[in-house]
Amino acid sequence: MRRLRIGMAQINTTVGDLEGNTQQILKATAEARSLGVDLLTFPELAICGYPPEDLLLKPQFIKENLRSLKRVVSGCSGITIVVGFVDAKGDIYNAAAVIHDGKLVSVYHKIYLPNYGVFDEKRYFRAGSECPVYIIGGVGIGINICEDIWYEAGPDTAQAYYGGEVIVNISASPYHFGKGNLREKMLATRASENVAIIAYNNLVGGQDELVFDGNSIVLDEKGRVIARGKQFEEDLVVADLDIEAVSRRRLQNPKWRKETLRLEERWSGAKIVVSEVPSASPKPSLSSRQLEARSLPGEVYGALVLGTRDYIIKNGFDKVLIGLSGGIDSTLVAAIAVDALEPSSVVGVAMPSRFSSPASISDAELLAKNLGISLITIPIEKVFQAYLEILSSSFEGTKPNVAEENIQARIRGNILMALSNKFGWLVLTTSNKSETATGYTTLYGDMAGGFAVIKDVPKTMVYELVGYRNSIAGSELIPVTIIEKVPSAELRPGQKDTDTLPSYYVLDPVLTAYVEEDKSIEQIVAMGIDEEVVKQASRLVDASEYKRRQAPPGVKITTRAFGRDRRLPITNRFKG
Amino acid sequence: MRRLRIGMAQINTTVGDLEGNTQQILKATAEARSLGVDLLTFPELAICGYPPEDLLLKPQFIKENLRSLKRVVSGCSGITIVVGFVDAKGDIYNAAAVIHDGKLVSVYHKIYLPNYGVFDEKRYFRAGSECPVYIIGGVGIGINICEDIWYEAGPDTAQAYYGGEVIVNISASPYHFGKGNLREKMLATRASENVAIIAYNNLVGGQDELVFDGNSIVLDEKGRVIARGKQFEEDLVVADLDIEAVSRRRLQNPKWRKETLRLEERWSGAKIVVSEVPSASPKPSLSSRQLEARSLPGEVYGALVLGTRDYIIKNGFDKVLIGLSGGIDSTLVAAIAVDALEPSSVVGVAMPSRFSSPASISDAELLAKNLGISLITIPIEKVFQAYLEILSSSFEGTKPNVAEENIQARIRGNILMALSNKFGWLVLTTSNKSETATGYTTLYGDMAGGFAVIKDVPKTMVYELVGYRNSIAGSELIPVTIIEKVPSAELRPGQKDTDTLPSYYVLDPVLTAYVEEDKSIEQIVAMGIDEEVVKQASRLVDASEYKRRQAPPGVKITTRAFGRDRRLPITNRFKG
Repeated sequence: MRRLRIGMAQINTTVGDLEGNTQQILKATAEARSLGVDLLTFPELAICGYPPEDLLLKPQFIKENLRSLKRVVSGCSGITIVVGFVDAKGDIYNAAAVIHDGKLVSVYHKIYLPNYGVFDEKRYFRAGSECPVYIIGGVGIGINICEDIWYEAGPDTAQAYYGGEVIVNISASPYHFGKGNLREKMLATRASENVAIIAYNNLVGGQDELVFDGNSIVLDEKGRVIARGKQFEEDLVVADLDIEAVSRRRLQNPKWRKETLRLEERWSGAKIVVSEVPSASPKPSLSSRQLEARSLPGEVYGALVLGTRDYIIKNGFDKVLIGLSGGIDSTLVAAIAVDALEPSSVVGVAMPSRFSSPASISDAELLAKNLGISLITIPIEKVFQAYLEILSSSFEGTKPNVAEENIQARIRGNILMALSNKFGWLVLTTSNKSETATGYTTLYGDMAGGFAVIKDVPKTMVYELVGYRNSIAGSELIPVTIIEKVPSAELRPGQKDTDTLPSYYVLDPVLTAYVEEDKSIEQIVAMGIDEEVVKQASRLVDASEYKRRQAPPGVKITTRAFGRDRRLPITNRFKG
Repeated sequence: MRRLRIGMAQINTTVGDLEGNTQQILKATAEARSLGVDLLTFPELAICGYPPEDLLLKPQFIKENLRSLKRVVSGCSGITIVVGFVDAKGDIYNAAAVIHDGKLVSVYHKIYLPNYGVFDEKRYFRAGSECPVYIIGGVGIGINICEDIWYEAGPDTAQAYYGGEVIVNISASPYHFGKGNLREKMLATRASENVAIIAYNNLVGGQDELVFDGNSIVLDEKGRVIARGKQFEEDLVVADLDIEAVSRRRLQNPKWRKETLRLEERWSGAKIVVSEVPSASPKPSLSSRQLEARSLPGEVYGALVLGTRDYIIKNGFDKVLIGLSGGIDSTLVAAIAVDALEPSSVVGVAMPSRFSSPASISDAELLAKNLGISLITIPIEKVFQAYLEILSSSFEGTKPNVAEENIQARIRGNILMALSNKFGWLVLTTSNKSETATGYTTLYGDMAGGFAVIKDVPKTMVYELVGYRNSIAGSELIPVTIIEKVPSAELRPGQKDTDTLPSYYVLDPVLTAYVEEDKSIEQIVAMGIDEEVVKQASRLVDASEYKRRQAPPGVKITTRAFGRDRRLPITNRFKG
């Protein structure tokens, strides 16, 4: 009876950390070996980290990545592994090395190079054109990379056609909410249409704007999930694959091959024998485990925590600084920071002004107490007064307006950055996506900082996430007074967000349609939304491009985040 | 005798300004008609502006661009024109419309889509595969777009092979210094290898980080320049083409065709008759003109002026604000701003601190006087003192360091932004490329503003540009005391740039090698530079990525600018 024990190392690599990534790969290999794994896989570009962006243009980077691959090759005796690296053969390729018992047996080159959204792979890589099938322990294995498996009649189908019974996909698939379901459905379709087991090994970890959510998965030839990796955590997923079941099902339905390969053969499919005989390594029995499905807010919250933690840690910080206004946005950011690090690594700074309500200060204090973080209070009045004095002759005869408001936000930015510069702490900013979209945030003010944790979280989702956090705390960790407070920037007497913006419950669907779905003003109005609201919102989005261009990175959690994902000109007269 | 009067409209379009661009096209068409032009060309994507970036993902944008094309079609009776637009046939294409006497005759789709450097065309467009030859007035014309002509045996060669006697290339080719020469040599090679006249119509104008330098050019079948458009200015280039000379030369060398088409025929080349008979329109005689070649600093200076002017004007500003420190960088920016606008549209702001030398203030005053701009003086001491007071308990027991230095720079940023917010003036920032590369500039401080004029100008070139500006002024417009001053940020007593950085004459070649040429530390050391200097410089460049990500756009003038041109991760452990 043909069986194969597969292992998928869902590791958290770091871009450019060739040494560290190599160590992780060797460590996981040793662990998998002790579990009797026959075939161990690693994520896309595991050796150099993903996405390496323009590091790929540096010849030295490519060379050192090849040197690291050699170390991996010589370190993996007694097992077969598949690991992502950058291959250099004239041009460079996004590649998977097939390594068996200390020898590099073959290399697969990614065929479909994504060049949309956050992806720029055609900027760097040449596409492959070969779909070999590897015989490992007598089992036919097709190997491909990430995007390769997203298309009907793609490389996976060619590999099944050429004899692949198990299709391995090594991936670095960035998270957005709902992506896990989307992936699972797609993979189930591939499994059943190819009558093949699919082992999908995704990366885990945060890299600048992206979070890779892990969620690696093995599906049988009917598309049923047989093993699943953790979401947002490192994991080693091990599963025993029943290859006979694949053969049986293919025999039962002799037309599967013709039905499968609907398109012409586009790629050659040589057979490469890695090992004909199943490995004789002892197979300790596998413990079964259940992974709880997360709720949507739970999932998004997990992504924010991981993305924030990894940005902080991978950039060498150990402490963060957050301006606490007593509002819900900075509150959520503080809660995420505490969950990403520990309370003693998070410092809140309250910076009350003449326009701060007493509740704002007491709420910030209560929050700091609940979260167990320290709070520094630095009133800004003295500095604000000094600015007004030195600007008095320039401002003479003008009415107070956004200039005076922004001075206050920028004083706070300067204070946070001064503390950051003095103590080496990273400033987390607190603007949400609704504010970032409409420019309802001050450049160099509340936008000042290293990482914009909730930049891609619409305001209405901010409330959901706070509710989620309280629900898992089982207590009023986040004070209800903060949740129920009317949103205000408190930069002038009695100011409310709704003085400038529509209600967030009206605004957010407009922003989603305009920013994420490229709907026209006409189409959004047709959704039943007031035309003036739509026009105002789209105008604000367009006019704020220059601000967003100077914003710090933050975690992408929607289908289209601001940043690499959405590239609009600043100079632009197109409306709508 | 077969002749053709060609016109190339080197216009300054604006991205997204479909209405404005259409008007410009119609106006140039009328002018060309009055000059008896048979065939008039416009730059790449002239209808919608270049590069439209993710506006191309908006269906509404594509639709309105097609609507504008229709208006151009119906507005061009009695002439043949070639104009760039976005074609939509299932997918979208970077296209050239061939319009004759009020009718759309044909559309060419760009074949080579650049996807490197600042270009992302594969993100948007599908590539074309046809190389028709148009018969216009009995003359064979090949039409292609920008990148298409940069490769040996590319679409131009196919078109020559299929009967093209004149090759028209409509382009949006961004400037970097030396690009003009590079282009001219390349075009001369194409002309002589194809034995064809080449009419190269480039865009002119600034768009965010890019400057299109115009410099359109017509070369005869031997590769000799017969007409040339202005650099950095709009122009209508008109030339009479001697088609007989092409025929003669082809007859003299019957092997030209075989020699020309070295590669297999990759693209089909249908013949499309636009007009067999030469137009009978009267041909007023053309006045000849000489264009002076610019020196290298003159060329770069011209690019900076145009890029700055267009950013300001196209974004709706009429006045700019510059912090004048009395240093050479802010001085150069002020001079460029005055040349881009007029003195009354430029406001200097001197913001002396306790560490400012008396000469800095007097130099700023003298400079403002020389340039004829107004100067506001706002000492920052009072505000600085107030910051130190409110931070005193947080900073207790620490030594003054970069925190106190940056507070000052950020006070200046806040003041400039307050004036900007109050009066609607755009802040121009003054960091040069050497500072931007090494992070020797304060985020939210001197980096605060809308446009970073000399962001891509290395410090050593700053001196050259100032020298150039004085040389054309024929006077000491820029005071020699500013030029000869030792560079200093004046943020602590007796500070000099060389306390932190090597001499700029040592540093700049290292930065060019590391940033623009992707050389490794080893390779740069092999250039004969001290290893410690190279290591320090590369470390500073790597560590400053987070700052640059939050920098305003500025004019690209080198082969690789910071911004869209160089995409490095912030989270990155690769050194060298």
